[in-house]
Amino acid sequence: MAAMGGGGKESGCGGGMAAQAGRLGVVASVAFNIAALALFLRRRYFGDDADEKKGETAAAVAPSSGKPPVTPDSVINLDHGDPTMYEAFWRGGAGERATIVIPGWQTMSYFSDVGSLCWFLEPGFEREVRRLHRLVGNAVADGYHLLVGTGSTQLFQAALYALSGGAAAGANPIGVVSPAPYYSSYPAVTDFLKSGLYRWAGDAKVFDGENYIELVCSPNNPDGGVRTAVVNSGGGGFVVHDLAYYWPQYTPITEAAAHDVMLFTVSKCTGHAGTRLGWALVRERAVAQKMSKFIELNTIGVSKDSQLRAAKIIKTITDGYEHAPVAAAVAGGDDDSGRLFHFARRQMVSRWGKLRAAVANSGIFTLPDEIPGHCTFANETVAAYPPFAWLHCEKEGVDDLEGYLRERKIICRGGAKFGVGGRFVRISMLDTDEAFAIFVDRLAAMK
Amino acid sequence: MAAMGGGGKESGCGGGMAAQAGRLGVVASVAFNIAALALFLRRRYFGDDADEKKGETAAAVAPSSGKPPVTPDSVINLDHGDPTMYEAFWRGGAGERATIVIPGWQTMSYFSDVGSLCWFLEPGFEREVRRLHRLVGNAVADGYHLLVGTGSTQLFQAALYALSGGAAAGANPIGVVSPAPYYSSYPAVTDFLKSGLYRWAGDAKVFDGENYIELVCSPNNPDGGVRTAVVNSGGGGFVVHDLAYYWPQYTPITEAAAHDVMLFTVSKCTGHAGTRLGWALVRERAVAQKMSKFIELNTIGVSKDSQLRAAKIIKTITDGYEHAPVAAAVAGGDDDSGRLFHFARRQMVSRWGKLRAAVANSGIFTLPDEIPGHCTFANETVAAYPPFAWLHCEKEGVDDLEGYLRERKIICRGGAKFGVGGRFVRISMLDTDEAFAIFVDRLAAMK
Repeated sequence: MAAMGGGGKESGCGGGMAAQAGRLGVVASVAFNIAALALFLRRRYFGDDADEKKGETAAAVAPSSGKPPVTPDSVINLDHGDPTMYEAFWRGGAGERATIVIPGWQTMSYFSDVGSLCWFLEPGFEREVRRLHRLVGNAVADGYHLLVGTGSTQLFQAALYALSGGAAAGANPIGVVSPAPYYSSYPAVTDFLKSGLYRWAGDAKVFDGENYIELVCSPNNPDGGVRTAVVNSGGGGFVVHDLAYYWPQYTPITEAAAHDVMLFTVSKCTGHAGTRLGWALVRERAVAQKMSKFIELNTIGVSKDSQLRAAKIIKTITDGYEHAPVAAAVAGGDDDSGRLFHFARRQMVSRWGKLRAAVANSGIFTLPDEIPGHCTFANETVAAYPPFAWLHCEKEGVDDLEGYLRERKIICRGGAKFGVGGRFVRISMLDTDEAFAIFVDRLAAMK
Repeated sequence: MAAMGGGGKESGCGGGMAAQAGRLGVVASVAFNIAALALFLRRRYFGDDADEKKGETAAAVAPSSGKPPVTPDSVINLDHGDPTMYEAFWRGGAGERATIVIPGWQTMSYFSDVGSLCWFLEPGFEREVRRLHRLVGNAVADGYHLLVGTGSTQLFQAALYALSGGAAAGANPIGVVSPAPYYSSYPAVTDFLKSGLYRWAGDAKVFDGENYIELVCSPNNPDGGVRTAVVNSGGGGFVVHDLAYYWPQYTPITEAAAHDVMLFTVSKCTGHAGTRLGWALVRERAVAQKMSKFIELNTIGVSKDSQLRAAKIIKTITDGYEHAPVAAAVAGGDDDSGRLFHFARRQMVSRWGKLRAAVANSGIFTLPDEIPGHCTFANETVAAYPPFAWLHCEKEGVDDLEGYLRERKIICRGGAKFGVGGRFVRISMLDTDEAFAIFVDRLAAMK
């Protein structure tokens, strides 16, 4: 869920949605706004007449490739955690092994397993996810109910629905809180339908109600911090653990998490954001049932095609480690072509090195400290290399760092959307090599 | 959207969710309840210890096949419009042509077309949907904005969000109405989050408010009726047309629909319910933008894998007609192997013939009349063969027809869930040949 989010700035990006969002108060003020960003980028890339250029000639169905390639003069969009960094791994040998073939007659039914609590969960996907957790050791899966969702965003909403009581909820919406800086889309996604079941209640550190749902994102989006629940009012609180980034390329795996509700997403584990798949591990059956009910009402289940594909992708990862054990991988060589976490860790180490050098060169920015820990997966002490850089500006007069960087053609997300000040921004570390290189060059030159 | 829905009966199906639903009032009373149904079916199929039988042996990832096969003694589940009837078509030559291959490195980005209003819409999917509408002539697509959703269920909620004003909505939720009998999941999906934006307001025929969203499902789920908007209060009403079943296998195509908001789903057009894909044609840009925003907030876009697969499937259908023109297909032969609508129409004619014979044989049921019309697609006058049978029982003492049939191992959905009396039930006409055959045999024997 912490996977992504938006934050096209309301002013300056133009476009109907942005203007509208600016007017609309609570939700809009925190909402991420990809529509506005798209318009902004379109004008840059294609000019104002982009609409006219979209012909309708029928052709073979080819997949999109996401955003256009960057050039040294491009606007660099690091607003979203678009994990295109991973494409290089999957273009290697592993990509072929992860190829999926689906004939026209497969998976036509709504049902995947009519006898299961989560009747739309493909058994093969469940099997591979459980296998992956056993490999990595980042969460206890045995004894937990596993649910699939259309990204962990949907599962986040399912958890709010389930924990607030669903149809049985009381008269007052339950407060949803998280310590600032919190993931920018928590408030927007909580409030956009003005639900009578739950309502965004802000920074968990200053919350003192008795009924609440606390969101614990760890490592935290945006700042990479390792977190535990902070509200301690003695009341009837629930906790949802958003573990989107609790994977060994980003942070040391220090224990197998065993919380009541744990959310994960394929996007930030394997890099396949376009599959829109997340999963939840849920301790209590009744909560899992209500979460499943939410997904049934919201979308009548989850794409089977994506589940089959994600199962194959995850299987490829686990197989890669079973064929070339971790110990050997750590000990030897640079060949990460079959070992996803090692490939991604190497990338993150490299990128964080370049970023810290650029920040040192510039002199006007600071970053959070590196926090090392013993990783049970890698069996060594490693530093954390979060998927986002939480950049702070020390320069006098720069109170809107997001705007300052936007003028320099770097799009990222300002601190206000995370519940803190405008001298902070969140920057994705997961974009393409080309975009990242241009970004650090520009950053190093800012004085 | 009318695609599906549930309706496991609250009492009698057992299971935590069902019991809970029974207690929870408004939403639950109309909610479809697949969880309860699943439990009911599991006990029938597998016995009470089904959970224990689900081993966790790692194996190659194989897709699920939906529900278990039926036997003459089986419970027959015709509660949902699970379109497994179509599998026979796709197992023919067309299925091979519709096969999709996705390498591991494709479609990893969140974005499909960063310059588009609907930035998560795969251009290939859009192209094939527009091409299909041109072939069939059931809707005007030129000049309309096209959006993709996780089934038309998600697009239905997106339409409510957009038309109720989203974040800009007033203090009172807008009323959502539809003439009874209305699709059973309209009330449940409208109300399950207790949104402050919109609220289910019941039968459109007795609604007299000024602000409303009217849902026009045509052909109508459950009764197959051809419908137009009925509310005429002179106020600020919006209309959403749910055209899930406006395809030539179900009803004569009498004109190219050109309404403000039109919803379609792959499930009931091609039979691929498991892909969870729908699309909307939307006249006004501002409405389309807000609908896109809903999907961004709800699920950060829609599975690209499903979009690529659906594009290939739809392309296969259109190609099938371009290679063997409609006129030839109508004139000659029984070879429907490449012509989906002709295959499905032949199935529907056959099934409705068998159903009407069974009803005549039984003597205690009635069905809606066949309504013929000139179909511009087939270029001949044809009758309507709806995807659901709206069965009425004339027998004295049978006031709960759903329960009456359940005792006879036929699961379907009772009239109360559609806003009418218990002497009606809705029965899916789209299940497998085997399930349908057992169903009509049992029906014919009821006296």
